[in-house]
Amino acid sequence: MATTDQIRSTVEAYAKAMTANDREAWLGLFAETATVEDPIGSDVRVGRESVGEFWDFVHSLTPQIDMEITGPLKVVEHEAAFGFTLTASVGDAKMRSQIIDVMTFDDDARIRTMRAYWTMADMQPVD
Amino acid sequence: MATTDQIRSTVEAYAKAMTANDREAWLGLFAETATVEDPIGSDVRVGRESVGEFWDFVHSLTPQIDMEITGPLKVVEHEAAFGFTLTASVGDAKMRSQIIDVMTFDDDARIRTMRAYWTMADMQPVD
Repeated sequence: MATTDQIRSTVEAYAKAMTANDREAWLGLFAETATVEDPIGSDVRVGRESVGEFWDFVHSLTPQIDMEITGPLKVVEHEAAFGFTLTASVGDAKMRSQIIDVMTFDDDARIRTMRAYWTMADMQPVD
Repeated sequence: MATTDQIRSTVEAYAKAMTANDREAWLGLFAETATVEDPIGSDVRVGRESVGEFWDFVHSLTPQIDMEITGPLKVVEHEAAFGFTLTASVGDAKMRSQIIDVMTFDDDARIRTMRAYWTMADMQPVD
């Protein structure tokens, strides 16, 4: 099983890669057979290729997403749940929301499943 | 399906009943067939009676638990994830931790499943 420190490192690398707009680094954090449900209730993406398409879809809507882990960040067994603040560029404006992601990890601390708790109604314009 | 407001009310009532040490009010928020995994990785309690035994076990360790929802509190579809600060009396001392709970709800906004992300290692003495 991956250690708490390894899982924490994956979560931190995830936020860093998103903010750095580094698709390759971000995608490399997922297991080959990873699933992504973002947000909860949307179609589940299955497999790293589909997760990459999810990245492309999101970035067709907003070119820049800043992701700051604002907590709590909890790692238990092979799972993590963490709160973060997302700031997304939309045209000349910025939208912001707090979000909770829940993930499970494989033995190499790669993301096996990811589910994101947020709704469009949560997004607020940044002054 | 329960509305976002109904689910939010259940979550707030959950924290309030815990802090008020009101076992009956707390237990009444669960569906008859509810499951509880608290913390992640422990045996899953199945059914309201077993969830009540979980309450009794926890309160045999600590007579008073204050539960303040410190966020984020996210409700999506029939699910919720939220961060809170737990303060537990242990003898003359108090221990504190941030925790994330993830819940699903039935059509009456009663808790169907609850999973709690925390470890004993997270608990810190309160000065």
